[in-house]
Amino acid sequence: MQQSLITLLSDFGLRDEYVGVMKGAIAQIGPSLRVIDITHHIPPQNIAAGRFCLMNAYRYFPKGTVHVAVVDPGVGGKRRAIAVEIAEGFFVAPDNGLLSGVINQSGIYKAVELTNPKYWRTTVRSQISNTFHGRDIFAPVGAHLASGVPLKQLGEEIDPASLIQLELPKCSSTKNGFLGCIQYIDYFGNSVTNIPGNYLEGKSWSISVAEKVIKGFDTYTDVMVGEAISLVGSHGWVEIAVNSGNAQLQLQIELGDSVEIFIE
Amino acid sequence: MQQSLITLLSDFGLRDEYVGVMKGAIAQIGPSLRVIDITHHIPPQNIAAGRFCLMNAYRYFPKGTVHVAVVDPGVGGKRRAIAVEIAEGFFVAPDNGLLSGVINQSGIYKAVELTNPKYWRTTVRSQISNTFHGRDIFAPVGAHLASGVPLKQLGEEIDPASLIQLELPKCSSTKNGFLGCIQYIDYFGNSVTNIPGNYLEGKSWSISVAEKVIKGFDTYTDVMVGEAISLVGSHGWVEIAVNSGNAQLQLQIELGDSVEIFIE
Amino acid sequence: MQQSLITLLSDFGLRDEYVGVMKGAIAQIGPSLRVIDITHHIPPQNIAAGRFCLMNAYRYFPKGTVHVAVVDPGVGGKRRAIAVEIAEGFFVAPDNGLLSGVINQSGIYKAVELTNPKYWRTTVRSQISNTFHGRDIFAPVGAHLASGVPLKQLGEEIDPASLIQLELPKCSSTKNGFLGCIQYIDYFGNSVTNIPGNYLEGKSWSISVAEKVIKGFDTYTDVMVGEAISLVGSHGWVEIAVNSGNAQLQLQIELGDSVEIFIE
Repeated sequence: MQQSLITLLSDFGLRDEYVGVMKGAIAQIGPSLRVIDITHHIPPQNIAAGRFCLMNAYRYFPKGTVHVAVVDPGVGGKRRAIAVEIAEGFFVAPDNGLLSGVINQSGIYKAVELTNPKYWRTTVRSQISNTFHGRDIFAPVGAHLASGVPLKQLGEEIDPASLIQLELPKCSSTKNGFLGCIQYIDYFGNSVTNIPGNYLEGKSWSISVAEKVIKGFDTYTDVMVGEAISLVGSHGWVEIAVNSGNAQLQLQIELGDSVEIFIE
Repeated sequence: MQQSLITLLSDFGLRDEYVGVMKGAIAQIGPSLRVIDITHHIPPQNIAAGRFCLMNAYRYFPKGTVHVAVVDPGVGGKRRAIAVEIAEGFFVAPDNGLLSGVINQSGIYKAVELTNPKYWRTTVRSQISNTFHGRDIFAPVGAHLASGVPLKQLGEEIDPASLIQLELPKCSSTKNGFLGCIQYIDYFGNSVTNIPGNYLEGKSWSISVAEKVIKGFDTYTDVMVGEAISLVGSHGWVEIAVNSGNAQLQLQIELGDSVEIFIE
Repeated sequence: MQQSLITLLSDFGLRDEYVGVMKGAIAQIGPSLRVIDITHHIPPQNIAAGRFCLMNAYRYFPKGTVHVAVVDPGVGGKRRAIAVEIAEGFFVAPDNGLLSGVINQSGIYKAVELTNPKYWRTTVRSQISNTFHGRDIFAPVGAHLASGVPLKQLGEEIDPASLIQLELPKCSSTKNGFLGCIQYIDYFGNSVTNIPGNYLEGKSWSISVAEKVIKGFDTYTDVMVGEAISLVGSHGWVEIAVNSGNAQLQLQIELGDSVEIFIE
């Protein structure tokens, strides 16, 4: 049987043994399973940032890939643990909105609640940690899915409409363009708006953010080193950057800041 | 021949090429060997933190896994390089206490000093770096072990009782509970004591730390967001946390702080 | 057909999904291709640091390894994308000096400009991002190379002499030794000069840096804990360190600082 690839995304960081232990739990189930890290540096408990990274990543993996995503402030409480099938692959995660970006983009075939302990690290419920379902539930379930266990065996089917949605600020039209906000700031300080780049195809535009107005171009090097620029980022959203610099610091942009696009 | 999995744990960080180079040295010996990182962010030269992470991780890997652990302030000096076999697998490390947590938990079958240069990166001793035994000795020896070389071929057998032990504060009983200390603080600020969680099974308790008293519960969500909680962590030790927050910062906890548990 | 190993080096950091997405793009081309990270923490846009880490790493990988290196401040602009073959393997990178350390050490067999979109993520040029050639060009080309596609199919052959060289300070001889500078400071604060260690074989020496004079020894433990030391590092360059400490902080060393070696 062909094994699928597994990806991991979490807010665990890389300082402790947690991520390694998830991979060990996977290897105990399938020693030849292959795992790729998307990132483990989602800011602690920040479901919105996890949702954003996952939504931008999943299309770049082979069809059938199993994505295990754990940003889980409600671990051990009443939130459901779920697995979801979409056209491009599978997702295993807490039901807290982490998957809502993916599902809004792709639609959903089927969802189950992870109620079958046969596919957890142990079927002895008292040995399941209250604080580390990544190790004890999500990673083992992902390993079984990637090994060929059908989704429906993982638990009871649930209504996709019942899954938690993350409420996010919407982008809206104005007379001359669009209103939106900064939804993510990356490691380089590139500040990503919630305005889709395809709204601007073939157009000239400027964007206002943090009381500055910045002109839209195609790529970083269209402006001088150290100058601010707006462009459509590799994820498909309009972003604000500085050529060879850090837009967040230089323009004092914060997450959630309002932006407005003016089409010329 | 079935190859074993290799894990790596170090204080090398991920900024430089050092970890990649260890994996290259492994691939030069066995191109199909599989490597999982436990962590490379042990604080520099902090043997106690390395010991803690290793001790909490090894049980979650397949039987026979080869764990290569390098926190090695004495590299190039007189400390021995060793390989150790326990029931669950193998360890390759400097003899400086890094393995003492694992060995205290699991017991030890056999230990050798790594004196046979046949299994190093090169048998030419002048080509062995004085400062990077991870690349030149530990990773290559781990690769050979994982490829099926018997432990005894790696060097002279040594008395397990001669291995360096790390002296750690002990947890002790009081009239109403236990006295202990904070032995590790993780990336989330969760502050882990040296009091085993199984001492408290089925009991109600509180813990005092940094002049606060905190109640024991089952999981983070048993208290409100932002509130402090004590619970048994996924590693099995009593820890102090804040629901969706950072206990280290909020409660001003430091490594080594005394704690006292009061059973009710 | 035997697949080659792929390594990745970049300045992308590990906070966002970028590195995971590059690995996904590789897996889409060859699901069984194996990838090792050299590092993704090259300081943003710092070609010199990337050049240094790559130059110190490539010799420790199996012959034929494909090294994909992306520190690319000129992405989307006029800089060429290239692939290069040397005796030890292959490199895929922007033509901006990132490979100049490797090429100066090893010589070069052949270089091509990556002009054949057949080996990119998509042959539809408008779907190639202006800002993330790591995902859309470099990683896919590396995956094809590692799968056995000949270098010459990747694009037009170019004159190796036309590749961009990074201008670096040279080390020079003095009456009593050598003048040089700090070319790299690692995660531990070890400060690496541009003076090759083999200039000092069998000699006694001291080095001056940041208005201090430090004696040369063989290894960290030749001095007391907390004391400064100079030695030949594992990469072969003379470096300045502190036993169990951080030389950069303790001696206030900065990148580019002049150093002078006095042979005794």
